[in-house]
Amino acid sequence: PASRLPQVGTTIFTQMSQLASDHQAINLSQGFPDFEGPQVLLDRVGEYIKKGMNQYAPMTGVEPLRLAIADKIQRCYGRKVCPQAEVTVTSGATEAIFAAIAATVRPGDEVIVFDPSYDSYEPAILLNGGVAKHIQLDSYDFSINWDNVREAITASTRMIILNSPHNPSGSTLSVEDIAALEALVENTDILILADEVYEHILFDGRHHLSLHRYEALAERSFIVSSFGKTYHITGWKIGYCVAPAALSVEFRKVHQFLTFSTSTPMQYALADYLNLDKEHDQILGEFYQAKRDRFNLGMQDSRFQFTPSQGTYFQLMNYSSIRDVEDVEFVHWLVKEVGVAAIPLSVFYQKAPPELRWVRFCFAKRNETLDQALERLIKA
Amino acid sequence: PASRLPQVGTTIFTQMSQLASDHQAINLSQGFPDFEGPQVLLDRVGEYIKKGMNQYAPMTGVEPLRLAIADKIQRCYGRKVCPQAEVTVTSGATEAIFAAIAATVRPGDEVIVFDPSYDSYEPAILLNGGVAKHIQLDSYDFSINWDNVREAITASTRMIILNSPHNPSGSTLSVEDIAALEALVENTDILILADEVYEHILFDGRHHLSLHRYEALAERSFIVSSFGKTYHITGWKIGYCVAPAALSVEFRKVHQFLTFSTSTPMQYALADYLNLDKEHDQILGEFYQAKRDRFNLGMQDSRFQFTPSQGTYFQLMNYSSIRDVEDVEFVHWLVKEVGVAAIPLSVFYQKAPPELRWVRFCFAKRNETLDQALERLIKA
Ligand SMILES: CSCCC(=O)C(=O)O
Ligand SMILES: CSCCC(=O)C(=O)O
Repeated sequence: PASRLPQVGTTIFTQMSQLASDHQAINLSQGFPDFEGPQVLLDRVGEYIKKGMNQYAPMTGVEPLRLAIADKIQRCYGRKVCPQAEVTVTSGATEAIFAAIAATVRPGDEVIVFDPSYDSYEPAILLNGGVAKHIQLDSYDFSINWDNVREAITASTRMIILNSPHNPSGSTLSVEDIAALEALVENTDILILADEVYEHILFDGRHHLSLHRYEALAERSFIVSSFGKTYHITGWKIGYCVAPAALSVEFRKVHQFLTFSTSTPMQYALADYLNLDKEHDQILGEFYQAKRDRFNLGMQDSRFQFTPSQGTYFQLMNYSSIRDVEDVEFVHWLVKEVGVAAIPLSVFYQKAPPELRWVRFCFAKRNETLDQALERLIKA
Repeated sequence: PASRLPQVGTTIFTQMSQLASDHQAINLSQGFPDFEGPQVLLDRVGEYIKKGMNQYAPMTGVEPLRLAIADKIQRCYGRKVCPQAEVTVTSGATEAIFAAIAATVRPGDEVIVFDPSYDSYEPAILLNGGVAKHIQLDSYDFSINWDNVREAITASTRMIILNSPHNPSGSTLSVEDIAALEALVENTDILILADEVYEHILFDGRHHLSLHRYEALAERSFIVSSFGKTYHITGWKIGYCVAPAALSVEFRKVHQFLTFSTSTPMQYALADYLNLDKEHDQILGEFYQAKRDRFNLGMQDSRFQFTPSQGTYFQLMNYSSIRDVEDVEFVHWLVKEVGVAAIPLSVFYQKAPPELRWVRFCFAKRNETLDQALERLIKA
């Protein structure tokens, strides 16, 4: 039978993590920490399980967690959102992204996607009958050329998908980007899907320009985040989507038939932790900046070239002075011969520029892991 | 903006659970137990969290859980399935149902759905551009009239959705049903989605006629189940789908972009428990039969009429001798005046027969809860 997603194979993240383990390589490919989240948070799950919080959560998420999310958004971005009507807890940001697209993108609608882009956007658009219009970011600083966006917009443009801090490049939106976006969508019906899962991981004194800060944008946006990235618990798969009431109604219609609800005891544990520790997200940028700097300092002794990541827990490295081969070939060589797994940048493109010579490393790792990887990479 | 699911409101399960709590009614509406799962299973989650199993599970599920599922299928149904290629762990059966439909139903494809039916099937079909062809079950014994199915099949029929034991009616497929189904699909490309989440809850000595037992059917089927129903942990949201390798490839393409993976520590806990206790699922039918019988014995003193449920933890009750009103009105009266929440049968229909006079009670409750509900219902 004909496939509905003929072009999709096994995700690169699965492939590389497998190759890493086959070759006993250090795994800097798939994005996840090799250290633990806050002990209190971890302990709370067992406590809520013991207390008997093991049946369906409300479809929108447990109330204390929705309240804690609204509180956090006010604290971080000065925006008041309604925990009842505007916040929905999801089975990870991935589910939130799918639900936002499925709720609003109709057959024939166009969605603007910036390449390189996270791999789930395009299949979600396609399964819903939409058309992804890919715009390439600058291939050195990964910034948005807004003239290209303006040209790509048509009467069928339904949505723009933004991701800042940006996976895989680590670039972040600037105030100029926000102004350009505001000008572009003003007086249109274009919706925005803002993937802000790395919202608390920005470096060098940067502030996250969350769309929550810009009411004219927020009122047309699905703003998605993830607890996995912030609390080092990627395997719990809990995220959320904030959208104006009318959009949340549509979002929830889809969410309730995608997964209905999300792990009850983990939601209660997260609610407690968000209320207990209002500093964790404030210091997360510094925490990861130290790791980025440790990694990049080491890499100065290698033949890789780079500009420091502005956010996320990823660092792109240009390998053109090491080997002049395509990046998929390069990462295979890297995992086998050097013993470090990375992600080739080309997989994040619909149509990658042939001269692309970047790979992505994840530095969400213990210092020992980073040091071991550096030892190997320097020899490359 | 036009809704993609204009006809969908808040699910009846959410509405009724809310009404139950507003009116301090006993909640026999939404299907979930008010008692706990096995202590060892509950404890294991905290142990795996402590052991650091908090990052992404493999997209297909953790290996020990896939092995334990394959082992269980062999033990219960004598079928050997491949844990690598044919088993995928999902964020509840709801996600599995959506993924199976999204992976295979193309715009214009027809899907046969038996009414009354679980509320997620139709929206999943619609969002993927499919057409749901509703066939009503017999409105007294809720059996399938296979002549009606034969007439509904066209060149565009892509899938038949079966659900046995059946929510909400508690009916189960018979060997005659299986034979009729086999004859019907033979020499066609029609796929089957078998929602078997109540597979271990059958009464009065019945055996579950899982499609796993029928190779000619299994080879064209997505067979979906849920740990929530079997282990009294509906809030953990872990289910799975078993399908032949070629169908699993397509299923996983969608799953990886719907949720990617499912709670890692809970998956490991379930794997351990499935290996430790191979009796739980064998005695679950008896356990729930005692509850069904307690409830039904009590209801003999009421003015409700019924045929005992054959499976699931639901019992339909006919209230025509109490009040001659539509069922939505009846359940509102029941929750407010009698103090017991139930689900009206009509919500499970695309077009309910106007003379329908059934409500669904969930008997997955402690004996005290059932007895309290009975005390109230007998007065109705
Ligand atoms: C869901 S696996 C991918 C994890 C991730 O976000 C990344 O590595 O980019
Ligand atoms: C996911 S809420 C619905 C629970 C259930 O299966 C039912 O009550 O029918």
